[in-house]
Amino acid sequence: MGIHARIQAEIAKSVQFDGHSHMPNTLAQAMEYAVFPGGARIRPTILLSVALACGDDQPDLTDAAACALELVHCASLVHDDLPCFDNSDMRRGKPTVHRAFGEPIAVLTGDSLIIKAFEHLALHCTTSPDRAGRLIAHLAEYAGTPNGICAGQAWESEPNIDLSAYHRSKTGALFIAATQMGAIAAGQNADEWSDLGAYIGEAFQVADDLRDVLCTTAELGKPMGQDAINNRPNAVAQLGVAGAMEKLNDILACAIASIPACPGEQALAKMVRMQADSIMPSADIVQRA
Amino acid sequence: MGIHARIQAEIAKSVQFDGHSHMPNTLAQAMEYAVFPGGARIRPTILLSVALACGDDQPDLTDAAACALELVHCASLVHDDLPCFDNSDMRRGKPTVHRAFGEPIAVLTGDSLIIKAFEHLALHCTTSPDRAGRLIAHLAEYAGTPNGICAGQAWESEPNIDLSAYHRSKTGALFIAATQMGAIAAGQNADEWSDLGAYIGEAFQVADDLRDVLCTTAELGKPMGQDAINNRPNAVAQLGVAGAMEKLNDILACAIASIPACPGEQALAKMVRMQADSIMPSADIVQRA
Repeated sequence: MGIHARIQAEIAKSVQFDGHSHMPNTLAQAMEYAVFPGGARIRPTILLSVALACGDDQPDLTDAAACALELVHCASLVHDDLPCFDNSDMRRGKPTVHRAFGEPIAVLTGDSLIIKAFEHLALHCTTSPDRAGRLIAHLAEYAGTPNGICAGQAWESEPNIDLSAYHRSKTGALFIAATQMGAIAAGQNADEWSDLGAYIGEAFQVADDLRDVLCTTAELGKPMGQDAINNRPNAVAQLGVAGAMEKLNDILACAIASIPACPGEQALAKMVRMQADSIMPSADIVQRA
Repeated sequence: MGIHARIQAEIAKSVQFDGHSHMPNTLAQAMEYAVFPGGARIRPTILLSVALACGDDQPDLTDAAACALELVHCASLVHDDLPCFDNSDMRRGKPTVHRAFGEPIAVLTGDSLIIKAFEHLALHCTTSPDRAGRLIAHLAEYAGTPNGICAGQAWESEPNIDLSAYHRSKTGALFIAATQMGAIAAGQNADEWSDLGAYIGEAFQVADDLRDVLCTTAELGKPMGQDAINNRPNAVAQLGVAGAMEKLNDILACAIASIPACPGEQALAKMVRMQADSIMPSADIVQRA
């Protein structure tokens, strides 16, 4: 099974409530709606790619880790879209969860997906106690506080924003989680994999800034220009389009150079380049600017 | 150290961010505000009492489990108080988290406390992999879906509410978690402890219904009569005050009878009676009705 198919199958399993007659139907539907069809699945793809590069000797655990990471990411999108944050009507080309199911169910969908992520990893505590425990600890670190995406989002409520902490935790955290959890799932030390995750996260942030400025609402599947509207920092506003494109290329070179020695080092470098191409705004969109 | 002191000390450790210069200050304050001074700490008290009755041979793990359970409970209160649910202004005699810190921080506080609960348990995956793994799995089961408090809360958004599933998951789940996690922390099988948790949960629900009808807003620390306002089922509406009091006493007798044989069985029965007295509306309040 390919990487994408592994991810989709595992996520489908995690939000499957058939046979649970006491599960309230709307919440079950909303949880599935929040994770399918899904976006590019970049974070779990990176996680699986790192695990494969390290030998992927426990593929069931790797799949669970990839799924848990994506569930937390999807949960954060559902909550970030709420009226009290971005107040977004559309996400991935369809109405946001609170527009489709109401605000109470959207809050509960986020909560339930976060909890499901940890529950899904805990299934492996019996067979792989050491790795599963470390996966749970790392996921919590990069999802929560003080270094995770919750802390990152909370910077938007501070009178004086620490910009580097904001980007590192809001966008970077789940990419660092992706590379580290991939290594852990394959029995490796997590520490040496954090640079790769941090660089990919930084690249993703710049690419996102470019798309927010350059792409139309139809191309994005959500409204364009949200950073300016919400007064959020944006690399294009600081460096211009050409400067931001140059920065993006520099970061990607650093990312590839940071890959630790491992059996699948070359294949992993190729994957990073492919992911980079997929997040880079296309030439005609840049020219249009 | 007594039970209450153990709980307070462990919760304080879990939301301590001193030395983390990159933690946004408002979220750190809000997390502490949401868990201190706290209510009666009934769920972690039950958890510790069960662990003590079973020998409490790993007190550090027991403390972590009690803390994790209370963090999830506090998170659920923060989210339940939000404008899209109960829209409560007051909780435990002070403004709710969203009134004190704003809605975005309240959403993030709930998310962060949920994640912190699992992170706190994961600290013990190295030293007690089997028990820590089972504790994480049980906490997730009773916090999330399909059997946990998220599912319970979601029943309020259904056109046709399954009343028994609603009560079992919304109120009962964390009491079952309390007794089962106490047993697991002390190395015992969880299954035989679920009845005790379920009975205590049922008793707590009836007591809560009584207080919602009988107590003044000042006595409750939150507005009275919320069940009628929010059109929620209430035992007093169904059975009257005397009927509800009788039902409460019957449930407590069942709870005590259900305690499995263990070294501290008698002390545990005493604790259940004490908890019952503390949740029972006082005689003068009942007479006032």
